Amino acid sequence: MEIKHSNFESFVCPLPIKQNERIILSHGSGGRKTKELIDSIFLRYFTNSVLAEGNDFADILIPEKEQKLIISTDAHIVSPIFFPGGDIGRLAVSGTVNDVSMSGGQPKFLSASFILEEGLLLSDLEKIVISMQKTAEEADILIVSGDTKVVEKGKADKIFISTTGIGFAPSNLKIGGQYARPGDTVILTGSIGDHGIAVLAARNELGFSTHIESDVAPLNHLVKSILSATHDIHVLRDPTRGGLATTLNEIALQSNVSIELVEEAILVKNEVKSACEMLGFDPMYIANEGKMIIISPKSKEDIILRILRESALSKDAAVIGRVIPGENHPRVTMHTSIGGIRIVDMLSGELLPRIC
Amino acid sequence: MEIKHSNFESFVCPLPIKQNERIILSHGSGGRKTKELIDSIFLRYFTNSVLAEGNDFADILIPEKEQKLIISTDAHIVSPIFFPGGDIGRLAVSGTVNDVSMSGGQPKFLSASFILEEGLLLSDLEKIVISMQKTAEEADILIVSGDTKVVEKGKADKIFISTTGIGFAPSNLKIGGQYARPGDTVILTGSIGDHGIAVLAARNELGFSTHIESDVAPLNHLVKSILSATHDIHVLRDPTRGGLATTLNEIALQSNVSIELVEEAILVKNEVKSACEMLGFDPMYIANEGKMIIISPKSKEDIILRILRESALSKDAAVIGRVIPGENHPRVTMHTSIGGIRIVDMLSGELLPRIC
Repeated sequence: MEIKHSNFESFVCPLPIKQNERIILSHGSGGRKTKELIDSIFLRYFTNSVLAEGNDFADILIPEKEQKLIISTDAHIVSPIFFPGGDIGRLAVSGTVNDVSMSGGQPKFLSASFILEEGLLLSDLEKIVISMQKTAEEADILIVSGDTKVVEKGKADKIFISTTGIGFAPSNLKIGGQYARPGDTVILTGSIGDHGIAVLAARNELGFSTHIESDVAPLNHLVKSILSATHDIHVLRDPTRGGLATTLNEIALQSNVSIELVEEAILVKNEVKSACEMLGFDPMYIANEGKMIIISPKSKEDIILRILRESALSKDAAVIGRVIPGENHPRVTMHTSIGGIRIVDMLSGELLPRIC
Repeated sequence: MEIKHSNFESFVCPLPIKQNERIILSHGSGGRKTKELIDSIFLRYFTNSVLAEGNDFADILIPEKEQKLIISTDAHIVSPIFFPGGDIGRLAVSGTVNDVSMSGGQPKFLSASFILEEGLLLSDLEKIVISMQKTAEEADILIVSGDTKVVEKGKADKIFISTTGIGFAPSNLKIGGQYARPGDTVILTGSIGDHGIAVLAARNELGFSTHIESDVAPLNHLVKSILSATHDIHVLRDPTRGGLATTLNEIALQSNVSIELVEEAILVKNEVKSACEMLGFDPMYIANEGKMIIISPKSKEDIILRILRESALSKDAAVIGRVIPGENHPRVTMHTSIGGIRIVDMLSGELLPRIC
């Protein structure tokens, strides 16, 4: 912390930010207005000694040896930027925390780059930044590097946030979409479709009101709990864009196996089910932002379920299917509740744009 | 490399991409079209075993012990996306490589997240991705993690790219904007203003033709050469947005020192000078993307200049000023060529939007 805060004082605009103050192009100039924005919003909420050093880079002592570095990145363009259960800031932090966590590693640091549209309300930016910091604290990570650019009105849509997560995993851990094996059990941590339907509701595209909230949440503590009980986990994956169906197809392809699901085991909340029926959507393709698929040897099923059910994030965890040989034609099938078997394909085309 | 490439074959669209093929919303769906785009453009050019694993995270063995981790991020929104001497892809890779390098560390890995506007020509995206890979090879880094989102036409401007660089530095290295000390020498690696004027020219905003090309380039090898001769470097900084004037003001503030410049020592190419005179710009505030400020003890001046002049990127390197006590009123002044002294302030307002 070599920066004297007083160095910046003359540039800090009066706090709190003015009502109805909006982003202007010079907030992205790299000059005085950029510094004002950084001081009055970003440094104000993203408080840690690494970020406070004020360089264009974050500089961190590698915590432990015999670890691998885990890196994941995501752009976030959700519309609207506020929705029941979350906002683009919580989404940006959770999404990247979760991608890093799906390696079995623990995220530690996050970088965030902001593309702001001229005219964005500073109070909206502030809400989003506060939400990011809150989510970062919940996940126990630090936001250590950032950048802000501003584009002219009409050249972006309010705010886009790209986040990159950096974490560490024991070097002997082997978890990934390529490690599913025939005989493995497929566990899902809870209901599907909540995030997508909550965002649709916020767009007033449902035509009726609903109480569904997005499930957006960081899952890293859950991953840690599971791994503290067993390292015998083959795949962890969060079924986001493209939904459960697409994610399971990706795993099947990566591992060259097939996956058999049981429809009745997959929880879909009644309100999500109704919304999907009215709109002609299949909840299997709707994005989730706080759910996780766990594929492990069947022998670990009980211990994993016991741990998951202890957390509010995964109290509805259940076995939803199993891995079978793919015989070079990997596919996902589902035993439906009316007794049939159907093929569950990957999403084709676009179901819900701007969902994350 | 656990993925069998054949797993994906059925989803790969015919290569090369079709003429006049454009980005559509479903390229961002997370489903089949997203996979097509990733396979036919991103994985085709960003070829390395880490990225090819196909997980949402990159998983890397930490190369050496006793190192610090360096992280830096940048959003890139330059308009137009192609300009003399470069493009948004070369800019995105160089910009982040340079930010990491300014720590004295060496960048090793890059993540890239793309926000694409519906209607973007796939051939333009391809050119940009090729340029990124070429620049990554030039810098000797790997692009290990990526993400792509698509927004509706009119909700972005062709393409925005956020990059995060991850690198390593010896843990005992202390280089940063906060370490300038009175008596230090200030070296600049070459001419200023080239990037900004080249982008303006590409926008046809000059009203006359010019041959100025952007200086956009990765500077990490240059940093390595300097550090192989001496670790006695206090500050490295690339004068990008806000130009040389703003960057030096930032350093003065961070270190609580003043900086005295000599105008005659600062190289401005004739064409840049003419363009600035006609437009009423001061080249001190124009962005550079391949220049570096080096602040070191005066005793290291000769060795640093000798090394810099051996590289085409910095053959015009020169001492442009010195650090003096700031007495708690840090500022930047310039001895002008007509014999006066003027205060060189930080950029106020926005000079050139969308320059990087």
